[in-house]
Amino acid sequence: MFSNTRTWTIEWGDCDPAGIVFYPRFFAAFDTSTARLIEAATSRTSADLMREHGIIGWPMVETGARFIEPASFGEQVHIETQVTRVGRSSFGIAHRLLKDGRLCLEATEVRVWAAHSPVGLGIMGVPIPEQIAQQLRGG
Amino acid sequence: MFSNTRTWTIEWGDCDPAGIVFYPRFFAAFDTSTARLIEAATSRTSADLMREHGIIGWPMVETGARFIEPASFGEQVHIETQVTRVGRSSFGIAHRLLKDGRLCLEATEVRVWAAHSPVGLGIMGVPIPEQIAQQLRGG
Amino acid sequence: MFSNTRTWTIEWGDCDPAGIVFYPRFFAAFDTSTARLIEAATSRTSADLMREHGIIGWPMVETGARFIEPASFGEQVHIETQVTRVGRSSFGIAHRLLKDGRLCLEATEVRVWAAHSPVGLGIMGVPIPEQIAQQLRGG
Amino acid sequence: MFSNTRTWTIEWGDCDPAGIVFYPRFFAAFDTSTARLIEAATSRTSADLMREHGIIGWPMVETGARFIEPASFGEQVHIETQVTRVGRSSFGIAHRLLKDGRLCLEATEVRVWAAHSPVGLGIMGVPIPEQIAQQLRGG
Repeated sequence: MFSNTRTWTIEWGDCDPAGIVFYPRFFAAFDTSTARLIEAATSRTSADLMREHGIIGWPMVETGARFIEPASFGEQVHIETQVTRVGRSSFGIAHRLLKDGRLCLEATEVRVWAAHSPVGLGIMGVPIPEQIAQQLRGG
Repeated sequence: MFSNTRTWTIEWGDCDPAGIVFYPRFFAAFDTSTARLIEAATSRTSADLMREHGIIGWPMVETGARFIEPASFGEQVHIETQVTRVGRSSFGIAHRLLKDGRLCLEATEVRVWAAHSPVGLGIMGVPIPEQIAQQLRGG
Repeated sequence: MFSNTRTWTIEWGDCDPAGIVFYPRFFAAFDTSTARLIEAATSRTSADLMREHGIIGWPMVETGARFIEPASFGEQVHIETQVTRVGRSSFGIAHRLLKDGRLCLEATEVRVWAAHSPVGLGIMGVPIPEQIAQQLRGG
Repeated sequence: MFSNTRTWTIEWGDCDPAGIVFYPRFFAAFDTSTARLIEAATSRTSADLMREHGIIGWPMVETGARFIEPASFGEQVHIETQVTRVGRSSFGIAHRLLKDGRLCLEATEVRVWAAHSPVGLGIMGVPIPEQIAQQLRGG
């Protein structure tokens, strides 16, 4: 399965009065990591993928995270992101956030390849194109 | 177990280019809901609790969320928050986000009653005071 | 000119490691205040206005803010928002943020009534409909 | 006067339903740019500066911004940041955000070198140490 690692520098504005990352900001960081992985796997930008495939992105269906050690502003952490499963229209992602090699946080995601639907807020899963599926699998 | 419900109005800045809530913003909303529940259970403000008990708050240990239906700006949703467990220094929370009575999102949390520790970033679980534990249990 | 006041409760996640509001969060609060003023003046939701008038909103052209006193989580502040000018496609807004009657922050905005344009990122000012202009003037 | 330039990649979560950067996120980006400039000028991290000088940071006193061209997710922009003035306890900063060499946004800031005060929320300006002042001046 395809994987990608990036460095994230934690900023002052990512942190709360306890001096540690306000945990929703970790999810924003993971959202970026998932985008980077998809871009690296497909050699396309997110904007290109949306335009070319008529999708609105890959919204979250389910996520979970386990917080092991806090992190604070000024720290550089590494986020290892990996595809764990590629289904018909959904796919799985796992993130590991490391500081100086120590695991601080791990998270999993189920995302869906999604387009506007004709009803409601108009979002529905659509089949992941076969080429994209193969690229996510790392094949 | 103690429970509390609040209304959340979704703002333009909570939403992403797909026109729906950027999912980390849901976690920020849940963080507020957990604070409101603790405040309602104890009849104290968060700031008061931190000052009086020498804690830095109740950081997240583990969370999970399942996204069922998206929500968009201008929508008013209800977040039902409930204590699910009160341990020695950790406690469990469940959130249900409803729109016009329909479940859009559900989430669980494990939080820890935490103080500064003498080492590292200095956060460690401390025992939940018995009175607070009783209040969280709704007793 | 039309004016509107709302209450804003500052949350833990709005604050930084100094324990005070991370200043970009004030701008997010002002963005909400401007939306509330426009909604109150027109008796329409933001989403309705966008749909009915074919606009993408009222993006910022120019803003300035003067920070007088900090604010922290748990505090309830009042934001007084007023239209200061209504032009052909742009309009001016002023915000005053008060805590217990003391002015903590004041800000001004120039916004533009904007639609998608056929080129580039596709945003251009369009004339403010006469009825809306009158409502913003408070007439 | 000291200046510093950095690259900022705009993420999906920085953008709003109009598909462009939600303007408070520009201020978060500028906050990071100011920190980077101070770090580059002093060869210290923000955390080190706070610890060594007993300050809580350099909160905003006044800021203004002029938005010329929008930016969207996936775009890489450059932020040029420059010290414009160094006073006794306050200093001025100017930012220019450029996309492919075109100016999209310019902003100015007045910041204060600040410590906890014994009263209230406890923030007050303190004199900028002479060595820091010289470094900010670029001398």
